[in-house]
Amino acid sequence: MNPPKTDARRHHDPDVRGFASDNYAGAHPEILAALAVANGGHQVAYGEDEYTAHLQQVIRGHFGATAEAFPVFNGTGANVTALQALTDRWGAVICADTAHIHVDECGAPERVGGLKLLTVPTPDGKLTPELIDREAYGWDDEHRAMPQVVSIAQNTELGTLYTPDEIRAICEHAHEHGMKVHLDGARIANAAAALDVPMRTFTNRVGVDALSLGGTKNGMLFGEAVVVLNPDAVSHMKHLRKLSMQLASKMRFVSVQLEALLGKDLWLRNARHANEMAQRLAEGVRAVHGVEILYPVQANAVFARLPHDVGERLRQRYRFYFWDEAQGDVRWMCSFDTTEDDVDGFLAALKEEMAQ
Amino acid sequence: MNPPKTDARRHHDPDVRGFASDNYAGAHPEILAALAVANGGHQVAYGEDEYTAHLQQVIRGHFGATAEAFPVFNGTGANVTALQALTDRWGAVICADTAHIHVDECGAPERVGGLKLLTVPTPDGKLTPELIDREAYGWDDEHRAMPQVVSIAQNTELGTLYTPDEIRAICEHAHEHGMKVHLDGARIANAAAALDVPMRTFTNRVGVDALSLGGTKNGMLFGEAVVVLNPDAVSHMKHLRKLSMQLASKMRFVSVQLEALLGKDLWLRNARHANEMAQRLAEGVRAVHGVEILYPVQANAVFARLPHDVGERLRQRYRFYFWDEAQGDVRWMCSFDTTEDDVDGFLAALKEEMAQ
Amino acid sequence: MNPPKTDARRHHDPDVRGFASDNYAGAHPEILAALAVANGGHQVAYGEDEYTAHLQQVIRGHFGATAEAFPVFNGTGANVTALQALTDRWGAVICADTAHIHVDECGAPERVGGLKLLTVPTPDGKLTPELIDREAYGWDDEHRAMPQVVSIAQNTELGTLYTPDEIRAICEHAHEHGMKVHLDGARIANAAAALDVPMRTFTNRVGVDALSLGGTKNGMLFGEAVVVLNPDAVSHMKHLRKLSMQLASKMRFVSVQLEALLGKDLWLRNARHANEMAQRLAEGVRAVHGVEILYPVQANAVFARLPHDVGERLRQRYRFYFWDEAQGDVRWMCSFDTTEDDVDGFLAALKEEMAQ
Amino acid sequence: MNPPKTDARRHHDPDVRGFASDNYAGAHPEILAALAVANGGHQVAYGEDEYTAHLQQVIRGHFGATAEAFPVFNGTGANVTALQALTDRWGAVICADTAHIHVDECGAPERVGGLKLLTVPTPDGKLTPELIDREAYGWDDEHRAMPQVVSIAQNTELGTLYTPDEIRAICEHAHEHGMKVHLDGARIANAAAALDVPMRTFTNRVGVDALSLGGTKNGMLFGEAVVVLNPDAVSHMKHLRKLSMQLASKMRFVSVQLEALLGKDLWLRNARHANEMAQRLAEGVRAVHGVEILYPVQANAVFARLPHDVGERLRQRYRFYFWDEAQGDVRWMCSFDTTEDDVDGFLAALKEEMAQ
Repeated sequence: MNPPKTDARRHHDPDVRGFASDNYAGAHPEILAALAVANGGHQVAYGEDEYTAHLQQVIRGHFGATAEAFPVFNGTGANVTALQALTDRWGAVICADTAHIHVDECGAPERVGGLKLLTVPTPDGKLTPELIDREAYGWDDEHRAMPQVVSIAQNTELGTLYTPDEIRAICEHAHEHGMKVHLDGARIANAAAALDVPMRTFTNRVGVDALSLGGTKNGMLFGEAVVVLNPDAVSHMKHLRKLSMQLASKMRFVSVQLEALLGKDLWLRNARHANEMAQRLAEGVRAVHGVEILYPVQANAVFARLPHDVGERLRQRYRFYFWDEAQGDVRWMCSFDTTEDDVDGFLAALKEEMAQ
Repeated sequence: MNPPKTDARRHHDPDVRGFASDNYAGAHPEILAALAVANGGHQVAYGEDEYTAHLQQVIRGHFGATAEAFPVFNGTGANVTALQALTDRWGAVICADTAHIHVDECGAPERVGGLKLLTVPTPDGKLTPELIDREAYGWDDEHRAMPQVVSIAQNTELGTLYTPDEIRAICEHAHEHGMKVHLDGARIANAAAALDVPMRTFTNRVGVDALSLGGTKNGMLFGEAVVVLNPDAVSHMKHLRKLSMQLASKMRFVSVQLEALLGKDLWLRNARHANEMAQRLAEGVRAVHGVEILYPVQANAVFARLPHDVGERLRQRYRFYFWDEAQGDVRWMCSFDTTEDDVDGFLAALKEEMAQ
Repeated sequence: MNPPKTDARRHHDPDVRGFASDNYAGAHPEILAALAVANGGHQVAYGEDEYTAHLQQVIRGHFGATAEAFPVFNGTGANVTALQALTDRWGAVICADTAHIHVDECGAPERVGGLKLLTVPTPDGKLTPELIDREAYGWDDEHRAMPQVVSIAQNTELGTLYTPDEIRAICEHAHEHGMKVHLDGARIANAAAALDVPMRTFTNRVGVDALSLGGTKNGMLFGEAVVVLNPDAVSHMKHLRKLSMQLASKMRFVSVQLEALLGKDLWLRNARHANEMAQRLAEGVRAVHGVEILYPVQANAVFARLPHDVGERLRQRYRFYFWDEAQGDVRWMCSFDTTEDDVDGFLAALKEEMAQ
Repeated sequence: MNPPKTDARRHHDPDVRGFASDNYAGAHPEILAALAVANGGHQVAYGEDEYTAHLQQVIRGHFGATAEAFPVFNGTGANVTALQALTDRWGAVICADTAHIHVDECGAPERVGGLKLLTVPTPDGKLTPELIDREAYGWDDEHRAMPQVVSIAQNTELGTLYTPDEIRAICEHAHEHGMKVHLDGARIANAAAALDVPMRTFTNRVGVDALSLGGTKNGMLFGEAVVVLNPDAVSHMKHLRKLSMQLASKMRFVSVQLEALLGKDLWLRNARHANEMAQRLAEGVRAVHGVEILYPVQANAVFARLPHDVGERLRQRYRFYFWDEAQGDVRWMCSFDTTEDDVDGFLAALKEEMAQ
């Protein structure tokens, strides 16, 4: 059988992989195959198609009978739409000062949603009830943006993980103060795989009100979903998604990717593999004298400190980012498509450069 | 060879098509094939990949050496990002009162961009210098949002077309008053096919400063692009796209679709076919006594007036929308995948219902 | 007794008055005197002072037991704060296309409040249920900003008045569709004086949910108030006023002006006088051949059409505005401080210029 | 001569003063007198009056020939309007995490201006080039809101002062990185009085691009001004002030207050007096065993730490705020109308309560 015809040409080497980010990877072949399944014929646009309807069953299987998924285009879109749904016009969001919504979204929460972020420094990217209390006060004071939501990420931007009990404590604390809890789950699958529990164990089961469920970093071409877990906590998502410019016309192609990912175990296979590659990498790094691992390696990220010149030379061979260039801190991300050979080759290169 | 495995299942009948919208269609097979071409290996995220680089060549081939494409997720995103780039914080946008940005984007221009729209009634969805003048005044009056952009759509929401000279007159008029011109090209390919000219003939050649180039309605899964034609007229797109939540991480998959569409002639084949189907439909409708065609059928839309009960019954058999339900006005859209049999079957059904 | 000392010097002629706007006038002497009453000593800032507390009694005297006043700085501030309180993030506001919120606030509703305005052409600045219906639809359609508020002005920008029954019909119609009603009362006192009824007769008694109560144009230095009439219709005003930058620190000086205006009958004396001067002016104009009065003169504005060159010459002698310069339409506003001599002198000048 | 008549009645004791805030004070009598000077007759509204024209001369006298004042209603309005004028839509503002714009404006910068604030912890409310550098990076990275402005307050929210050289260093550092400098001068007069220099010495002379010039806290009824010092650094203020709902119709009454304040030396007399009262208070407090002064007393604020129960009892007798209630930290503000007797009485009360 001939491959299907297209005028697009290949411009890259499909055998080159690095450790820069899980969104440098492409799509998992099963995801591409799902697009073909959903293709052909006409389906109602803007979310009233059969694939989006079916996705709700898949989501309820993961998160319980009250959960509802609102597919969107990307993670910033998921976060900002969800946070608007959880706040009034005068609301503020408490988050870690390393949170993606604070450092990596070009102010979209502020500009699109009019959201005030109240940031708290943390040792490891994780909030606690005590850390939340640094900003959780003054609800009756109109000079202060009213803290209405606590937003946490699982796993965090630093690759660290909350236990379900830690999230439960945050939710109880937030709810006692009349605040709601949002979870940025851009890498929620990696967290579930690392904790070896279903996603509900650290979300709706412990009190999370709404989450951003990531798909892109776990093997989709694009696409995430806002998942409403506690309908009473969330205002009208329907119009909010549209006015936030996150409503896909041919939504079937987002929903079917999510079905392919979450319908059985692709989400878990991909995440487990990425996590295992990070463990393999971390083990190898620990054996290299002069390189320090900075945070517990719990999911698919390895943060490390190494001599700056070594970092520079190594980046000539494999793509990755300095996290704090002044300190020589780097981040190495593994992906669903990272191979054992990739890791071993990288470790060999690291040793070579350290030996220079 | 076995089809690739996926956990997603088919939930729809791929042989059922209607006349509701060109975004009820799926993706063209050549588009799906392009995704596989771009897949595999690692590519820099957020637009520094090889496919987005190559897309610039394709775009310059269409629109000249100064053109630059900024791929985004959807049409609302393209419009609102482009309009922000063309205005100051105090700017207003003159548009037809039927414009998509006014009636179909849930206020995203106002809410995301803080844009004031100054709308003008038109007979056929088309602005003219005279119509623009109804709102083009008061630039020095701070009580008035300052008119800074004229936004037109080619083709319009009513399926009508501007000639290149008509757009030239609008651009000259706008520029004389210090205003810029944005073109919403969600269906620009249908317009070019209908006019039988290259897209540049009615855009950069006649003075359009920036456009929203549609892909989804012409056979892509998703994806559009802001195309900057006059770099001097446009502020910093780079950050604007991100803060508007329209920056795709795995952008290669948007860009490669655009390459498959625009690299050779798929864009034109798809658009021509859709237009021809609309002509076939219109011809058939004109032969049906009691059904009136409302606007010149110039691209892929047919607007018609028929008895309300006929419309209701016909909608039980084929999907389409009432445009003005009180008047019995309907819109029938053709798509790249509409077949002659689809049209002929629909016409037969129309005749049957009219005969009831 | 010597006048109090100040380093400010007089830069204008206090005996020169025109017909440009009621906000060209200064403050009524009783208002200035009220400032001295409230001065001295310390009072809690930001609205917890005794004057603001007392103002609530005054407001309840006018509008009933559930009314609550939120003093603000200016009319745009009152309107935009009130409209935010009446809408969700996805809400739209139906208004006349001549409404101040649409034509005279530089897009503040859109930019500050993210509000979408749905405008309707009217013959005389007044909405009706039928006119409202042109935009009152599609509540369930997320592509459309959801119509949630009808905003009317009493009196209108064209100097016309609604009867209480006309407003009742609007309110009933709006409420039937789940919409709320806002009344822009920048000149509400002139309306009450003209109708010879209490303000409540055409506001809370007939279903208005919240209003912007004007003070500046009726003799205050500055200051207006959002008056919440139906507390169930309005979300949290407290924080909304602050985030809209309309919370005065020394609020006692806004509140005491409102008390001086509304506590007894200054509001009515001022408004009646301005209205009477407009009647005197209109009568005189009607006797001038070649000058046409355009709208019923019901409050303190006279709109007229006269030869353009006459208008130009007359403006050399008295300040006023062209309303539609191409047509030769002008607006002549009377104020609390307009004298009979002012009117008679102006009429004499008009006759002279018409005779040229 | 009889006092002017008014229907407003006195609701407070004009002899009671506390130490809560300088905006608990009323207006200076010379300010009230200025209002009468500007009253009477008609003046063009919205800033084209003679008083606003004259104010420009006064402002140029203080800040040099390129300075221009834009009177506004309040401090938040001044800050948010100025910051919008200094930034693009994608801009961010670096400020101390104690800054008024961050902690006391209910998110107005974010909600009205779409501004992202990048906050830095400081020991004493003061930024330095080194502290600024914690957030001054990543201008080319669209994931990051672009740092475009450094905003400092003189004096700071903690009552501390920058030397002119310290501000010069900040300005040079900011300008080297292409950033502009905004100074929140809500209490700029107190700063100038404390430093015993003209205001220009630590503003335009050392590189500040625009400032918010406070009037309310220094004896006005209401009113501040954005003062543009470097016209090249600031976009179109005219429309920005209006769309930010800060354009007063009867602007003469803001401008004449500013003239009365700044025209000769009232601004300095008021500020010096308030500062002296704070010094007198601080000296007295230092003599009370068990009460600790927290920051250098440089202007009109005294921050102190004392036993919580003492603070509670003392607040029954004099109004003031806890700053950090958990720590027992309090803020005592002196005002233009604070008397020596007020201070001495307060100190006696403090001693009594400490002795309990």
